[in-house]
Amino acid sequence: VTLPTPDVGAHPAPPPPFRAVAVVGLGTIGGSLARDLAAAGVRVLGYDADAETLHAAHAEGVLDAVLPPDLGGVEEADALVIALPVDLAPAALAGVAARAGRLRLVTDVGSTKRGIVRAAEALGLGPRFVGSHPLAGDHRSGWGASRRGLFRDAVVYLCPADGADAGACDAARRLWEGVGARTETLDAAEHDRRLAWTSHLPQVLATSLARTLAGAGYRPSDLGPGGASMTRLAGSSPRMWTGIARENADELAEAVEQCRAQLDGLRDALRHDDEAVHRWFAGGREFGA
Amino acid sequence: VTLPTPDVGAHPAPPPPFRAVAVVGLGTIGGSLARDLAAAGVRVLGYDADAETLHAAHAEGVLDAVLPPDLGGVEEADALVIALPVDLAPAALAGVAARAGRLRLVTDVGSTKRGIVRAAEALGLGPRFVGSHPLAGDHRSGWGASRRGLFRDAVVYLCPADGADAGACDAARRLWEGVGARTETLDAAEHDRRLAWTSHLPQVLATSLARTLAGAGYRPSDLGPGGASMTRLAGSSPRMWTGIARENADELAEAVEQCRAQLDGLRDALRHDDEAVHRWFAGGREFGA
Repeated sequence: VTLPTPDVGAHPAPPPPFRAVAVVGLGTIGGSLARDLAAAGVRVLGYDADAETLHAAHAEGVLDAVLPPDLGGVEEADALVIALPVDLAPAALAGVAARAGRLRLVTDVGSTKRGIVRAAEALGLGPRFVGSHPLAGDHRSGWGASRRGLFRDAVVYLCPADGADAGACDAARRLWEGVGARTETLDAAEHDRRLAWTSHLPQVLATSLARTLAGAGYRPSDLGPGGASMTRLAGSSPRMWTGIARENADELAEAVEQCRAQLDGLRDALRHDDEAVHRWFAGGREFGA
Repeated sequence: VTLPTPDVGAHPAPPPPFRAVAVVGLGTIGGSLARDLAAAGVRVLGYDADAETLHAAHAEGVLDAVLPPDLGGVEEADALVIALPVDLAPAALAGVAARAGRLRLVTDVGSTKRGIVRAAEALGLGPRFVGSHPLAGDHRSGWGASRRGLFRDAVVYLCPADGADAGACDAARRLWEGVGARTETLDAAEHDRRLAWTSHLPQVLATSLARTLAGAGYRPSDLGPGGASMTRLAGSSPRMWTGIARENADELAEAVEQCRAQLDGLRDALRHDDEAVHRWFAGGREFGA
């Protein structure tokens, strides 16, 4: 007998590496991505609303070409990365939608994904839109905080729009894996729920602690190493976090509520006995380093 | 005219450096202090309830002599450092009080100071007792986490007992400055109030976050760098923190309550507008790095 040749599925030929990528917004994330791409020999077309940033990125040889405010010429790129705060990204997407037809991939880098994915779908960009969220960054912000290698070993969540084509999904994976990241694809709603707990809640606690200390008259120099590490994130961009918190307000509120309940649990344990307090401090210890 | 010679005050001759120091409890703090003292040529007499720790400290040449469980022989030292969890320190102090008469200094290293200072006064040790609290440590605990240089550039709070003599205060300063720390003297009650906010509250928030995440089914590997830095302290010793939280429960409860109010403030801002949320995230930013 002759066994049939197994159907291993249609393996599309790998797409050619990116020749040119457009990056809109050259802050910590966009700037770092632009640096890595340029270093890999990819032509980077860039835009930033801050003229000094744009000048610096071009003068340092990171940008091959500067895009105008209307992003005319973006269609020369294979991929467009919108690296703006989450509340500005949808408008930028709308502004460029008419020109985005030739792009293999349109993506963003925002920390929330439901809004931008919905916006892309509504603009008819669904087939080539795959939202990205790199778990990388810095408490500092702006071009000055960007650097090569920021994404090495970082996780990047990918949230494809409804009906995103295989080529766009593949391009998104290659874009981030090309700068050293590991990608994980998940639904935008699931992404936002997960990040409310694992990222937005930690930020909220850092700011809450800093506000509490400032309100009680303490200064950063009053802190030991533990307290200093717990307030470091409070220096993150309020601009960026306002957008994130407002867009993900429903999920974030639930996470904050659960954390308040844990604080209540300590208060009750303190009124009880040593064993209850010990149990409280021992819980969640697997998260400690 | 002849100006009178100004009275510059009685400058006591500096005491001789410590010949021998007894350290009871060889965890991260006691062990690190013992290592630094031994490296500086001071004889270190040590005791730890854990036989393996005691053996290791002696075998590594850090301890010059091992003290018995009743601390007999402690009177051969110039200073005694009780480096035990805050809820065990008073009993150890009571056990050794009768032998402590010849010591120039008796101190501890606990993170709360009212209880131990009161205990020392009640035992008649006030004249030679100066409580210490080094703002140093590690989320890990035990002899294995001890290391040389832990106190370099660290702040060490000193809380003298009522009526502590000048020699004891001077010895406490020299002990810690000799291992590279900066000392700051303050009242035990003021110390405990300050630390409730600057140290105990950060620890409570780290554990609250870890408990919240564990309760919602998340794993440490789900966290990005920000979340990981905010849960690191959750690995601290529950044994140690139970004692601290119970002893400082009144001050800690007030700090936790103020932090809860900050979380409520965010919830209200989220229902309001971008400007309110921006104001919230911008507050306390001076604590950020």
